[in-house]
Amino acid sequence: AVRLRVREALRAREPAEEVRVQGWIRSVRSQKEVLFLHINDGSSLENLQVVADPSLENRDLTFGSAVEVQGKLVKSPHRMQNMELQAKTIRVVGPCDIWSFPLKMKQRQPLEYVRQFPHLRCRNNTLGSLLRIRSEATAAIHSFFQDNGYMHIHTPIITSNDCEGAGELFQVETSSEARDSADKTHFFNVPAFLTVSGQLHLEVMAGAFTHVFTFGPTFRAENSQSRRHLAEFYMVEAELSFTESLQDIMQVMEDLFKTVTSTVLSKCPRDVELFHKYVAPAQKVIQNFSFHSYLRDSFYFYCRISYSEAVEILKQASQSFTLKPEWGCDLQKEHEKYLVKHCGDIPVFVINYPYDLKPFYMRDNEDGPQHTVAAVDLLVPGIGELCGGSLREERLPFLESRLQRLGLTDAYQWYLDLRKFGSAPHGGFGMGFERYLQYILGVDNIKDVIPFPRFSHSCLL
Amino acid sequence: AVRLRVREALRAREPAEEVRVQGWIRSVRSQKEVLFLHINDGSSLENLQVVADPSLENRDLTFGSAVEVQGKLVKSPHRMQNMELQAKTIRVVGPCDIWSFPLKMKQRQPLEYVRQFPHLRCRNNTLGSLLRIRSEATAAIHSFFQDNGYMHIHTPIITSNDCEGAGELFQVETSSEARDSADKTHFFNVPAFLTVSGQLHLEVMAGAFTHVFTFGPTFRAENSQSRRHLAEFYMVEAELSFTESLQDIMQVMEDLFKTVTSTVLSKCPRDVELFHKYVAPAQKVIQNFSFHSYLRDSFYFYCRISYSEAVEILKQASQSFTLKPEWGCDLQKEHEKYLVKHCGDIPVFVINYPYDLKPFYMRDNEDGPQHTVAAVDLLVPGIGELCGGSLREERLPFLESRLQRLGLTDAYQWYLDLRKFGSAPHGGFGMGFERYLQYILGVDNIKDVIPFPRFSHSCLL
Repeated sequence: AVRLRVREALRAREPAEEVRVQGWIRSVRSQKEVLFLHINDGSSLENLQVVADPSLENRDLTFGSAVEVQGKLVKSPHRMQNMELQAKTIRVVGPCDIWSFPLKMKQRQPLEYVRQFPHLRCRNNTLGSLLRIRSEATAAIHSFFQDNGYMHIHTPIITSNDCEGAGELFQVETSSEARDSADKTHFFNVPAFLTVSGQLHLEVMAGAFTHVFTFGPTFRAENSQSRRHLAEFYMVEAELSFTESLQDIMQVMEDLFKTVTSTVLSKCPRDVELFHKYVAPAQKVIQNFSFHSYLRDSFYFYCRISYSEAVEILKQASQSFTLKPEWGCDLQKEHEKYLVKHCGDIPVFVINYPYDLKPFYMRDNEDGPQHTVAAVDLLVPGIGELCGGSLREERLPFLESRLQRLGLTDAYQWYLDLRKFGSAPHGGFGMGFERYLQYILGVDNIKDVIPFPRFSHSCLL
Repeated sequence: AVRLRVREALRAREPAEEVRVQGWIRSVRSQKEVLFLHINDGSSLENLQVVADPSLENRDLTFGSAVEVQGKLVKSPHRMQNMELQAKTIRVVGPCDIWSFPLKMKQRQPLEYVRQFPHLRCRNNTLGSLLRIRSEATAAIHSFFQDNGYMHIHTPIITSNDCEGAGELFQVETSSEARDSADKTHFFNVPAFLTVSGQLHLEVMAGAFTHVFTFGPTFRAENSQSRRHLAEFYMVEAELSFTESLQDIMQVMEDLFKTVTSTVLSKCPRDVELFHKYVAPAQKVIQNFSFHSYLRDSFYFYCRISYSEAVEILKQASQSFTLKPEWGCDLQKEHEKYLVKHCGDIPVFVINYPYDLKPFYMRDNEDGPQHTVAAVDLLVPGIGELCGGSLREERLPFLESRLQRLGLTDAYQWYLDLRKFGSAPHGGFGMGFERYLQYILGVDNIKDVIPFPRFSHSCLL
């Protein structure tokens, strides 16, 4: 018998005499004349309908049990499905203790509920769809960069760079060091931390390969249980040499977003539909529908404003903000929200931020009196910042004097070296992968778009 | 002017009037009548030859400087290259301080030497080739699994599973916890560690999607500076449900190896050649050459022996070992080496290891008197263990009693759950990505196949 995945069986063009399908029972309906089963194996949201003689029924044939069905694949008489399986034999490979199984048959359980069962929630329809989409998006991101001549780099997870000031870090020690803090030796001789970004390491590589990217885990020890923060999350980061304008960086962000999203929409239409129908709140659904048409529109990301313009818009807003907008201050969540709405509920690029707000590596615009750097943030509806990037300061004297003022010259001698030996203008950006998924699917809580969420007070499994 | 990567320029089929190439100078040769430059931008091992009027020469046009050249792409008169660039303008974008630049022009510097400069070594030819191969292999691994219906899963990096006994672990704390060990609170409420394997988390997913894989960083706090160990390295791991025999697992290992290696050989022939010519010691080159023909041979991995057979072979060996081979003891490096040689210097699968040697999750073979589990290791010439895998114990009573004897029942309640709710026979394996690269390229030291090596006493950048 030919072994078929459920997805393959459903899409078969021809009937087949002898096939074998393995998976888990999603429903059992027993009638006098016939027994109906729905089998799912995670290859698609849709189940395969199995039609069997009632004599094949048995005690273990319940929701959740693992089964192997052999039989004949035939055209289904039902409009909604292409094929069904006429069972000759049904073998229960592993029964399911339904009384203690927390997921219920044919019942839409809220995401907060299934989140309590990290080892079982992937069997829930919504999480199943999410993980298929996540997997396709991952592949699409790799393809996008590879097709565009970028080299993939595994930037390090453990790093001794600790001066970037990206909030509280996680430190890495051997278990024995952790037990005994009198032990002042370090495994790596120096204190070591979990990475907050692969950017500086990518810059090293951009000095040899011009176009590089990384896609891996990053970490923040933020003591927050909000629906927006994870301690461990994924970032897509790219770095481009011989790039002299923020336009180039924004173009890559835009192309990345469009290409990956089109791939996801075309590869997982039913999975995406599930989110837009059942998960995203009403107004988000609308946003997401328009979003389909935006994708076809080459002017999708047409809103590009400067930070200074943004502050003016905020100052003139009829709305009052908790934090008054002021040139030189960080944009707050409420400000970002307003700007996105103001621009018509579409993604908005904000460029050229105050020099004093941004890290040392961003390129000085040498303007004034309002001194800015060539930074760019991409704000999107419902999420806020989706991407952040900048041109990097490639000019040795500028970088030297900035690091000196910060007292970081010694720590970043190697970074200065990159400007001494064939420095090229370059820039790059990072995109939060979970935020991307939240945005395209309209998922409120970031914990629901990652297989095993880690956040303060929680590290299950 | 059309912007071309060096690789594109070299492969162009037609001359072009007006092109622009950006990169770094690898050599300058100034003659009375003509100035020759070689430009590299990391897109290929080969440089693009630039031919210019000597009047274009200038002080900053040195080895290592970043340049932009505009001119005419023409057929090269030289047999060894297809195209060359006749420069109209040469702009030095960033000069190179050659007196302090540690990499030298036209000089093959040993890998140990360039390893001292983690921020510059990617500009060395050998490391350049390595990183291109690594990037292609990464893409090929993702494609292999995707093409075969596996779902990609980001298994967590930080985990609270600590009982697997895989040697010393790295523990994760916030910087403030690390400073003050009297502070007994934990960010995650429980002690948290860097993952040593994604297997258990993949098993969760294999219970919903049947075929899953992960490809990410794993960590061991091994206090070793040997050429075989890293504290941070990459693993490819796969898990398959409804798999009842080790043959299935071995088949996937074999297919993965062959597919990825064929892709690398066809996409980076010159880069691979560099290793086989200049890096691998003589006997390895031979191995690697035969390896090309093995790839075409469907019986490439023909050596499959059981652990018990392996011990018999070792006992009958004329060679004497530091550790006497004995049934029930782990195979040592020297034993693995002998077995591989004995089988004709080809990869060898060793299956069915002693029950007491292996972790709790491996499937009991219920044999005797020499009690074994369904484990498999793949040993390869020059490296030793490249892959390790097993069938997993899917039978609740077997797993329950084993965990109980180990006192791990409470910690692994969730893992037992997977056997209560639709358990299916399954198995999987992991492949060390750096070892894979060492093997196909003949690289002796594992530190030379990863962009930023982390090992005891060293965490540069």
